[in-house]
Amino acid sequence: MDRVFSFSVLNKDPSCNARLGRLHTAHGSVDTPVFMPVGTQATVKSLDPEDLQKMNCRIILGNTYHLYLRPGTEVISRFGGLHGFMGWDGAILTDSGGFQVFSLAKIREISEEGVLFHSHIDGSRHMMTPEKAIEIQEILGSDIAMSFDECTPYPVDREYARLSMERTLRWAIRGKKRHGKVDQALFGIVQGSVFADLRMECLERLVEIGFDGYALGSLSVGEPKEMMLEVLEKTLPQFPEDAPRYLMGVGTPEDIVEGVRLGVDMFDCVLPTRNARNGTLFTSFGRINIKNSAYVVDGSPVDPECDCYTCRKFSRAYLRHLYVSRELLAYRLNTIHNVHYYLSLMEKIREAITKGNFMEWRKEFYAKRWEQNEAELHFRG
Amino acid sequence: MDRVFSFSVLNKDPSCNARLGRLHTAHGSVDTPVFMPVGTQATVKSLDPEDLQKMNCRIILGNTYHLYLRPGTEVISRFGGLHGFMGWDGAILTDSGGFQVFSLAKIREISEEGVLFHSHIDGSRHMMTPEKAIEIQEILGSDIAMSFDECTPYPVDREYARLSMERTLRWAIRGKKRHGKVDQALFGIVQGSVFADLRMECLERLVEIGFDGYALGSLSVGEPKEMMLEVLEKTLPQFPEDAPRYLMGVGTPEDIVEGVRLGVDMFDCVLPTRNARNGTLFTSFGRINIKNSAYVVDGSPVDPECDCYTCRKFSRAYLRHLYVSRELLAYRLNTIHNVHYYLSLMEKIREAITKGNFMEWRKEFYAKRWEQNEAELHFRG
Repeated sequence: MDRVFSFSVLNKDPSCNARLGRLHTAHGSVDTPVFMPVGTQATVKSLDPEDLQKMNCRIILGNTYHLYLRPGTEVISRFGGLHGFMGWDGAILTDSGGFQVFSLAKIREISEEGVLFHSHIDGSRHMMTPEKAIEIQEILGSDIAMSFDECTPYPVDREYARLSMERTLRWAIRGKKRHGKVDQALFGIVQGSVFADLRMECLERLVEIGFDGYALGSLSVGEPKEMMLEVLEKTLPQFPEDAPRYLMGVGTPEDIVEGVRLGVDMFDCVLPTRNARNGTLFTSFGRINIKNSAYVVDGSPVDPECDCYTCRKFSRAYLRHLYVSRELLAYRLNTIHNVHYYLSLMEKIREAITKGNFMEWRKEFYAKRWEQNEAELHFRG
Repeated sequence: MDRVFSFSVLNKDPSCNARLGRLHTAHGSVDTPVFMPVGTQATVKSLDPEDLQKMNCRIILGNTYHLYLRPGTEVISRFGGLHGFMGWDGAILTDSGGFQVFSLAKIREISEEGVLFHSHIDGSRHMMTPEKAIEIQEILGSDIAMSFDECTPYPVDREYARLSMERTLRWAIRGKKRHGKVDQALFGIVQGSVFADLRMECLERLVEIGFDGYALGSLSVGEPKEMMLEVLEKTLPQFPEDAPRYLMGVGTPEDIVEGVRLGVDMFDCVLPTRNARNGTLFTSFGRINIKNSAYVVDGSPVDPECDCYTCRKFSRAYLRHLYVSRELLAYRLNTIHNVHYYLSLMEKIREAITKGNFMEWRKEFYAKRWEQNEAELHFRG
C-alpha cells in the first residue's frame, strides 16, 4: 500500500513567501494555509462535528496527552480511532503530547528514555516515550501524527537549548523507527528556542531523517514577538519546498498573517475557542468583548461583515445577555463566531495568494484594524 | 381586531379523559397535549432556536421574573419582544413570575398590593404586582400570559390555603383588568393546595371572571403524588371543556401520562433540561445516568428506539466521555436527547388519543419500564 498522505504547492505569491497548497489525507484534502481548531478532548469545545462541517472546517487537532489519559486508548480503539469515537470524518492532526506533558502534568522527570509525569486529572504516574507517543497516535488513527519532542521553555540559555534540541532529534529518530501506519503522516518538530542557528541545524538533521512535514515548536511561549518573527524569517526559507510547514500553537490573527507571509502552511491555537469562552470575539475591525455594556441594546451582529451562524441569527445584545447570564448557549454561539472568523480569515488569505496579491491584502487587513483603533497592532505593516 | 388566540378540542379518548386539541396563537398552532421546554433566560439552556425547530418544538416557556431582572423590559422591548430578542418565531408562554418570586427571590413581603422581593442576582429591591406582571408580559409579547398568583407552599393548613386562594383570585381580577394585548391570551391559575373543594371553588370563580385558559398551580411542590392525582381527578372534570388546561411545572414522564389521562392539555417542567445537565437521560425503558461506568466502551446510542440527533450520531461511550470530562458539548447533546424524549412522548400520546387507544398505550408505556426495572414506578397502571 502506498502512503496516503501527500502535499502539493499550488501557487506562490510573487511578493513574499506565502504559498497556496493542498494536503491530501486519508480523510479528505485540506487547502493551505490552514488553521486547525483545537479539539483537545475529542471535541472542539462546545461544538459538534456538524457545527464544524457547516463552517467548511476540514481538519482539526486532537491532543494525545489528554486522550491517552481520558478516555484512554482502550476505549478509542473500540471505535476504530478518534474519527469514529467523536463522529468526525474530516482530517485530524494529533500532537504528540510533548507540549502538554511539559505544561500541564504535575511532576515530571525528564530522562533520555522519555518523560515521567503525573496526570493532571488524578495524579496517576505515567511514562511518555517517543515510541509510546507514536503507538498512541496510531491507535487514535489521526491523519497526521507528530514526533514526541521536548518543549523547550523560554527563557533558556543556549547550552540547554542545544541539549534539548539534540534530545528532540534522538527522540524523533526513535519515533520514526516505531511509526508504521501507512495512512498516517508523521511530522518532525524543529526545536532550538530563539537561536536561529540551532533551529536551522535541527531542521537540517530532521530532513536527513525524513518526515512528511516539518513543524516549528516552542514558539509563542513567552519570547518577544520580534524574536519569533526572526526565527521564522531565518529558518522558513531553509524548509523543504515540497513538505508542509506547521507553526505549532500560533496564534493571533496577526501572527497568522505574518506566518503566512513568511511561508507557513499550517497553524493551530486555542485562542479562538478559549477567547470565545471569555467573551472575547474576533471581528474584521479587531477584538471586542461581548460583556461590554455598550452592547446592552445593540441590535447589530457581532461583525456586520461576518456571515457565520451567530452573526446571521443573533444580536450583540442577545449574546451579551447570554454571556452575563452565564447561559451555556453563549459559549457555543461565541465559539461558532470565533472559529468561523479564523477559518474565513484563512479563506481570504488563500484567495489573496491565489490572486498573487497577498501583500496588498495584508495592508488592508491592518489598515482596517488601525482605523478602528481596537486591534492589537504588533505587526502593523 | 379579533382576539388571535383560540383553542379547539379535536378528539376525546373513549376510555379516559385524555383529549386531543389545538392551540391557535399569533406564532402558529400547537397540538395538545403539549410539553413546553423551559427557556428561563431567553434560551432553553444550551439550545438555540434551530435546535428546537429541528425537534418540531412549537411552544416554549419564558420566565417573567428572570427576564424582568435580566436583561430587563427596556432591552427586550427594543427587539419588539422576546421572540425578536431570542430569535424564536414559535409560540411562547410566559409565567407570571409568581412561582419564582416565592421560590428564588431572597427576602419578601407579601401584601394585598403584591410582593416585595430582593433580586436573587444583585439583591436589588423590586415590587411585583398583578398589574406589573401583566405589563411585563405584554412587553415580552408572549402568546400566552399567566395571571400573577401566590404560589401556595406545601404543607399548608386549610385556613392559609383559603386566604392564599382568595388573594390569588383578587390578583387575577386586577391582572385581567389591566390586560389589553389582543394577540396575547391570558390564563388564570387555580390555587387551593391539596384541598379539592378549595380548588373547585377557585376554578369556578376564575371561570366567572373569564380567562382564555386555566392552569393548576402549586402542584408537585412536595405533596405526595397521590394527593396531586386526587386534586387532578376531582377538579379536571369541572374545567370548561373548550379552554386549555395547563398543569404548571409538572413533571416526570409518568406524571405527564397521568395528567393526560385525567384531561390536562399543557405541561412544562425543568426536568428534561436540568436532568440533562446532571447526566440523567430519559429513555423508552426508564432513566439512565450517562456517568455510569457501564457505558465506558458502549457503542450503542442512549436509546436504540430514539431518533434524536444525539442518538443518531453519538454513542453512550462518547457521551460519557464528554460528561466526565466536563465538556460543554455534553450539556447540549444531553439536552437535545431529553427534550426530544419529552416532545416525542407527547407525539406518541397524541397519536394514541387520535387512535382512541390511550389507555392501552399507557399500559405498554409502563410495562416497558417495569420490564427494565429501571424506571420510577409511581403510577404503574
